[in-house]
Amino acid sequence: MTSDIAKNARPKARVVKIEHADDPRLAPYRDIRERDLVGRTQRFVAEGKVVLNVLLSSARFEAESILVLDNRLSGLEAQLRLCPEELPVYRVSQATMDEISGFHVHRGILAIGRRKAIPSSAELLAGLPERALVAVLCGISNHDNVGSIFRNAAAFEADCVLMDETCCDPLYRKAIRVSVGATLKVPYARHGSIEDVLASLSQEGFNLLALSPSGTQSIYEASPAPRLALLFGTEGEGLPKPLLDRLNTARIPMSRDFDSLNVATASGIALSRFSRFS
Amino acid sequence: MTSDIAKNARPKARVVKIEHADDPRLAPYRDIRERDLVGRTQRFVAEGKVVLNVLLSSARFEAESILVLDNRLSGLEAQLRLCPEELPVYRVSQATMDEISGFHVHRGILAIGRRKAIPSSAELLAGLPERALVAVLCGISNHDNVGSIFRNAAAFEADCVLMDETCCDPLYRKAIRVSVGATLKVPYARHGSIEDVLASLSQEGFNLLALSPSGTQSIYEASPAPRLALLFGTEGEGLPKPLLDRLNTARIPMSRDFDSLNVATASGIALSRFSRFS
Repeated sequence: MTSDIAKNARPKARVVKIEHADDPRLAPYRDIRERDLVGRTQRFVAEGKVVLNVLLSSARFEAESILVLDNRLSGLEAQLRLCPEELPVYRVSQATMDEISGFHVHRGILAIGRRKAIPSSAELLAGLPERALVAVLCGISNHDNVGSIFRNAAAFEADCVLMDETCCDPLYRKAIRVSVGATLKVPYARHGSIEDVLASLSQEGFNLLALSPSGTQSIYEASPAPRLALLFGTEGEGLPKPLLDRLNTARIPMSRDFDSLNVATASGIALSRFSRFS
Repeated sequence: MTSDIAKNARPKARVVKIEHADDPRLAPYRDIRERDLVGRTQRFVAEGKVVLNVLLSSARFEAESILVLDNRLSGLEAQLRLCPEELPVYRVSQATMDEISGFHVHRGILAIGRRKAIPSSAELLAGLPERALVAVLCGISNHDNVGSIFRNAAAFEADCVLMDETCCDPLYRKAIRVSVGATLKVPYARHGSIEDVLASLSQEGFNLLALSPSGTQSIYEASPAPRLALLFGTEGEGLPKPLLDRLNTARIPMSRDFDSLNVATASGIALSRFSRFS
C-alpha cells in the first residue's frame, strides 16, 4: 500500500493510484475477456456498481480487489465505506483500464471476487424452509441464459438454483453481468448428473415439475406444492425424454404456430406463476 | 441468371454459383454487420433457416435474394421449392460468405428481405377482432429486447405490436435474429409519439394497462378486458411518470429486494398472463 489515498472521499478502504498497465497488482484484471472464454479459476470478475454492491454484501463471496476509473471514484463513496481497510482499491485512467482488461470497460468499475465456500446441493437443500421454491437447470450452457435465469430467480425469491454439471459456470463474467449480480446473491450448487440433483430433491420432499412445451398440465392449472422444484432444460432439445416420461410435466400455454420461448423467459413466467408473491 | 443450377435439388428457384466476393450481385450482403450499426434502408437481412421460413411465408415482406453456403443447399430443398422462379438464390463458399458479410456466418444462410407495405397503427387496429391483445412499446431501443418481445408476442399470439418512434427498428438484423423471425410475423407499426399511439388505442376501445414495478394492481388480480393493450417502457427509467399517473397500472409481483426484471422477460410474463391460451 502506498500513501496515495483519494482525498475527496473518506473511505475506509485505501485507494491506490496505479499508473502502468503492467503493474503486477493489476494481473488478475489482465485480458479478462479472453480468459472468460477459455477457463475458470476460483476467482471471478464483477463489473459495474450494482454488481459490486451485491458482491460487497455477500456472505458467500468476497472481493479481493477493486479497480475503478479515476472519474468514477466519487460515485463509490458508499461502497468504499463498506470495504474492509485491507481490501485493495486501485484507481486507474480509462486508457490503463482498457489496456489491462483488453476491451473498453465503459462502466469503469471492476472487481475480482472469490468464493468463500461452495455448498453442495444437499447442504443447500438441508437449509431450506418448509415452503420453498427451487429452480433446477439441466444442460443450460449459454451464459446469457444462465445469467437471465438467476436474475429471475432473484426477482421471484427462489430459494436456490441447482444445476447439473453440464450447465455453464454462473460466475462467468457475462453470466454475472446479465444476472445483474444475482449469481452472487441466489445460493446455488452445480455438480453431478441431473439424476443426482433430482434424487436430492426427492429426498427432501420436493415436488418436481418439469417445464416442457409438451407438458401435460398448464402452469396456470398445476397446483403449487409447498416445496416445489421447477426443472428447465435446454432451449433447442429440451429435457431428456426419459426424464419427461417419468416426471410431472407442465407447459406454458402458447401458440402451436411458433418456435418455443427462450428458456430464460420461460423461467421468468414459471417462477412468477409459482412465486410466493403471486 | 446463369444456367448453373444445383442438380441435387429440384427447386423452382434457380441456384447460381458465385465465385468472387466482389460480384455485384452480392452487394446487398456486403458488410452487413457494420451497416446494421449505422443505418437502415427499406431492406433487411434475415439469417438462418427458421427466419428464412418466416420470410418466405410472409404476406408483408418478400425476399429479394437468398445467399447460401454450398454445403447448406441440400438442407433447403423445401424452402427453395417455395420460392418463385425469379427469386435469385446464390451459393457461395464459406470463405466468400464470410468475406462479403464481414463476419463468420455460421448458420450459412442469409437473405435480403424487403417490406411490401407499411401499415399505420390506425390501419392495424382497424383490422383487429373484437377480442384482441396488443403489446405497446415506449422507448425500447435495445435490439435484443425488441427481438425478444416480438418472440414473446408471437408465442402468445398478440395481435400486433405498436411502437412509438423512439423504439428501435425491429428489422435490425439482430432484432430479427433474436426474435427467431417474429418481427417478420407479428404485425407492427412504429411511428409517432406514445401519446399518439395511446390515442389510437383508446379510440378503438382498448383498455390500457401500463406495466410498472410501482403498478397498483398485480397482473394476477387485474381482470382481462376483451381488447387489452399492455404498455411496456424502458428497463432503466420505465414509463414516463405523467403516463403512469394517468393510466391503469399493473405490476408483476416480485421481491422488493432486487433490481427489476428485464423488460423482455416482463413482457413474456404479462403476455402469458393475458394471452388467450392461459
